[in-house]
Amino acid sequence: MTSTHTVELTGANLIGSVDVKDCGTPFQATNPATGAQLEPVYSPADDAAVDRAASLAWEAFGTYRHASFEERAAFLETIAAEIEEIGAVLIDRVNAETGIPAARVQGELARTTGQLRMFASVVREGSWTGARLDTANPDRTPLPKPDLRQRQVPLGPVAVFSASNFPLAFSVAGGDTASALAAGAPVIVKAHSAHPGTSELVGRAIRTAVQKHDLPEGTFSLLFGSGQTVGIALVTDPRVRAVGFTGSRQAGVALTAAAAARPVPIPVYAEMSSINPVFVLPGALSDRAEQPGRDFIAAEQLGRDFIASMTTGTGQLCTSPGLVFLVDAPGADAFIRAATDAVAASAAAPMLYSGIASSFADGVARLAANDNIESVARADNGAAIACSGVPQLFVTTADQFLDDQHLQEEVFGPASVIVRVKEVGQVPELIDRLEGQLTATVHATESDHEAARELVDRLELIAGRVLFNGWPTGVEVGHAIVHGGPFPATSAPSTTSVGSRAVERFLRPVAYQNVPEELLAPELRTDNPLGIWRRIDGTLKLS
Amino acid sequence: MTSTHTVELTGANLIGSVDVKDCGTPFQATNPATGAQLEPVYSPADDAAVDRAASLAWEAFGTYRHASFEERAAFLETIAAEIEEIGAVLIDRVNAETGIPAARVQGELARTTGQLRMFASVVREGSWTGARLDTANPDRTPLPKPDLRQRQVPLGPVAVFSASNFPLAFSVAGGDTASALAAGAPVIVKAHSAHPGTSELVGRAIRTAVQKHDLPEGTFSLLFGSGQTVGIALVTDPRVRAVGFTGSRQAGVALTAAAAARPVPIPVYAEMSSINPVFVLPGALSDRAEQPGRDFIAAEQLGRDFIASMTTGTGQLCTSPGLVFLVDAPGADAFIRAATDAVAASAAAPMLYSGIASSFADGVARLAANDNIESVARADNGAAIACSGVPQLFVTTADQFLDDQHLQEEVFGPASVIVRVKEVGQVPELIDRLEGQLTATVHATESDHEAARELVDRLELIAGRVLFNGWPTGVEVGHAIVHGGPFPATSAPSTTSVGSRAVERFLRPVAYQNVPEELLAPELRTDNPLGIWRRIDGTLKLS
Repeated sequence: MTSTHTVELTGANLIGSVDVKDCGTPFQATNPATGAQLEPVYSPADDAAVDRAASLAWEAFGTYRHASFEERAAFLETIAAEIEEIGAVLIDRVNAETGIPAARVQGELARTTGQLRMFASVVREGSWTGARLDTANPDRTPLPKPDLRQRQVPLGPVAVFSASNFPLAFSVAGGDTASALAAGAPVIVKAHSAHPGTSELVGRAIRTAVQKHDLPEGTFSLLFGSGQTVGIALVTDPRVRAVGFTGSRQAGVALTAAAAARPVPIPVYAEMSSINPVFVLPGALSDRAEQPGRDFIAAEQLGRDFIASMTTGTGQLCTSPGLVFLVDAPGADAFIRAATDAVAASAAAPMLYSGIASSFADGVARLAANDNIESVARADNGAAIACSGVPQLFVTTADQFLDDQHLQEEVFGPASVIVRVKEVGQVPELIDRLEGQLTATVHATESDHEAARELVDRLELIAGRVLFNGWPTGVEVGHAIVHGGPFPATSAPSTTSVGSRAVERFLRPVAYQNVPEELLAPELRTDNPLGIWRRIDGTLKLS
Repeated sequence: MTSTHTVELTGANLIGSVDVKDCGTPFQATNPATGAQLEPVYSPADDAAVDRAASLAWEAFGTYRHASFEERAAFLETIAAEIEEIGAVLIDRVNAETGIPAARVQGELARTTGQLRMFASVVREGSWTGARLDTANPDRTPLPKPDLRQRQVPLGPVAVFSASNFPLAFSVAGGDTASALAAGAPVIVKAHSAHPGTSELVGRAIRTAVQKHDLPEGTFSLLFGSGQTVGIALVTDPRVRAVGFTGSRQAGVALTAAAAARPVPIPVYAEMSSINPVFVLPGALSDRAEQPGRDFIAAEQLGRDFIASMTTGTGQLCTSPGLVFLVDAPGADAFIRAATDAVAASAAAPMLYSGIASSFADGVARLAANDNIESVARADNGAAIACSGVPQLFVTTADQFLDDQHLQEEVFGPASVIVRVKEVGQVPELIDRLEGQLTATVHATESDHEAARELVDRLELIAGRVLFNGWPTGVEVGHAIVHGGPFPATSAPSTTSVGSRAVERFLRPVAYQNVPEELLAPELRTDNPLGIWRRIDGTLKLS
């Protein structure tokens, strides 16, 4: 990763190949660790800028959707390379705008370029197009059987709403953008206002890639502004045909409603809210050979690991464990003690921006004021940090949890609630009370498997990912991952926003009946020039 | 097909294994050809019946979703066999309740049992489960790579709204029911009030199959009643998790809104409204060697074929061609003349029920009163038929069509509008004015291919199926078919309600991370005991 480039930030919206500035009330990024304002000044897009971006995107769609699989894949790889090219500058800026330590940013940058390259390989492999050929039979009676071929086509331009908590991996060139571009859809990104400089840097890298591949300028635009204005304008623009969003439940629900109220509704893929319940079963609390003089070493390790997961990214990961159901057993007290000690020993850290820090403070205060729950640990308050996130731990009982729906409201940040459960038999009732989740975690050993089987059976109905003997933070980008789940985890439970299947969100199937060979796309031609897997008369074939 | 069974109709809602009668204002079916009322009396389900059906369905879900692929497939095949067992009685009743001629009903019955058997084969083949395995790598740095496996699980109980126009193939045991049962979802059918006896006969066949396979009674229930009451009660019941619907735009939009307004929204797969535009290009009008003394034999044949398609099923097919764009060329007048003659020579036929007949009459009257369009042909009015549908043909010009959005409002029944287009260059502008469609048809020969290529390019953006040199009526049930399309054709353009992919509507993906082998479903076990295609580390494999 080199940074020989001079990268200058201008504060402009990137509307295709044109920089558009000074069109609204200006704003600046703030360093959440110091409170210092960061240059340059950005201005939100106005209606004309949104209209221009949508118009260019629609125009680009006519060309970009016909780009060959190879052209699209190479374009995604160039975006990855252009981002690496500005790596050092980018990492500094992300750190300044978000407070995320440089080492984590480095990892996120690698994930971001890795995602882009994974989608390049997905595009080349070709299964995403879902090619199916049903052979004609002109001699069939009473009616001849037609020639039918099916493929997926892109929906049209996609509006992507950047997340604050992944300023690279779920922002301007993040998973939504990569998967939409892979699908053949131009992208208009609505940048998150907390990291405008990061957004501009990455936006310029994408623009360079667009130019290097001679793609239409409208293939990508970047807009600044609020969700209520620029966001709603994008979602209701008739040329925008799908939306990718990662953020709060409130914003996700508002965008989904706006999209549903259009004369022609469009899908919103919103990843919103999850408290990621964890279930600790008795066997897991005594999993390891106990050492002389050290009872419950397994339980203590679990307690520490829990807090390590809870405080990762200052608790600002969508999969942060916000709720632990701890079944009473030898070791349960040791688990709580170790977790309590770990919280007390942890340090406050800057949260992403002031809004998220104050929401977290409010959420924690709400819990602290709730008689159904006890605050058992709080980290040092880190007074020197501008947007301080102070880790905190609460304990309650299963009965109190069942009585109080507020205890499962998401508190986004480094706080969690331990629910003491008298016996494993009460767990199913607790699961049935939970809302939809991105993840659900079970800690269990073989002695717990009978109970665990029933848990899996229920958890797979409420979560997108069920995991054992680990922690939900850390989302593996691959083919089998699901980052999704029932409402309110997402607005579209049949999809995933991470992993190779994310591309499916921006596609729809079209059938071609008796269409002349020369008018068919290559993926549907009889001789399979792309050499991709296809379903021929119901059977998967590579020829 | 035999009918040795005595089949008695009781007028009951089938709530699991219990018959529920006399719970609301009674109604009877009417023979649309004669106006005669048909026995027995049916009564709509009341709130308690809906609640009971939902409760049983949720309970059944816990068992039925774990039925093996083989058990599910055999169950679907038993339903098909049970329907065939009552074939003769069923055909008579369908004919009496809908006016559909027995020969067509026979064909629809074969399609219905064929669909059930196709979904049985789809379930056995196993690709629908979307199994993906990403191999663990404990040695990866900085973090070990987890074991991740993904499969599709059913959403939960599905409410199916029967269509009036396919009293078998899209009714009680139709495509929505078959695909939901294939997915592992219990089904509650809201019967269409126009064919209650047909619904009860088929409902009892399904109940028998449920019993023969020892499945929980709640696997299937059948309710009578209106969409506004029973329908909304079903769609808003928290235990119902998805909706399949075929019917009017108004009803589909209302159900979609009700589902979106739930505390936990659910998907509605509504197939609603389509006028199925047809584009006749110049070459197609002179496609065949002209015979001496018979100019424009191709154009005339096309005109007759058009009316044959328009009047199929008395115009009550979702894919009926309601709009023909006829490009001016030698043969265009001959096409219109032949179509006009065919309409004049055609006969009125009974429509499905009085409501649909009066809607059609209103729609035709609206067109007749519109100054932008000319009525050129009308069939004999068939005064002796109770719910008469009288074929009618209108002609307008491209300029008038562009001026008047009302000309593309669906008129469900045997009526169609020919739009005369001066030159092929005007067609793209016309396409851009169209709403979403189930189908779009092009009539073209090789000489038209340059123009046709641009048409396909635009039509695939607005239609679920693009077809050449045929007519859109007749939907092939297979693997490559798409019966779907952008709004208002459907509420879910990324899906199809016909063909093997219909099962996907009722599934969502779940990832399993480091879950012990013994707690995994068979489709995800390392040794692939089901022998199905799976994606292993991104590559499709059968082992």
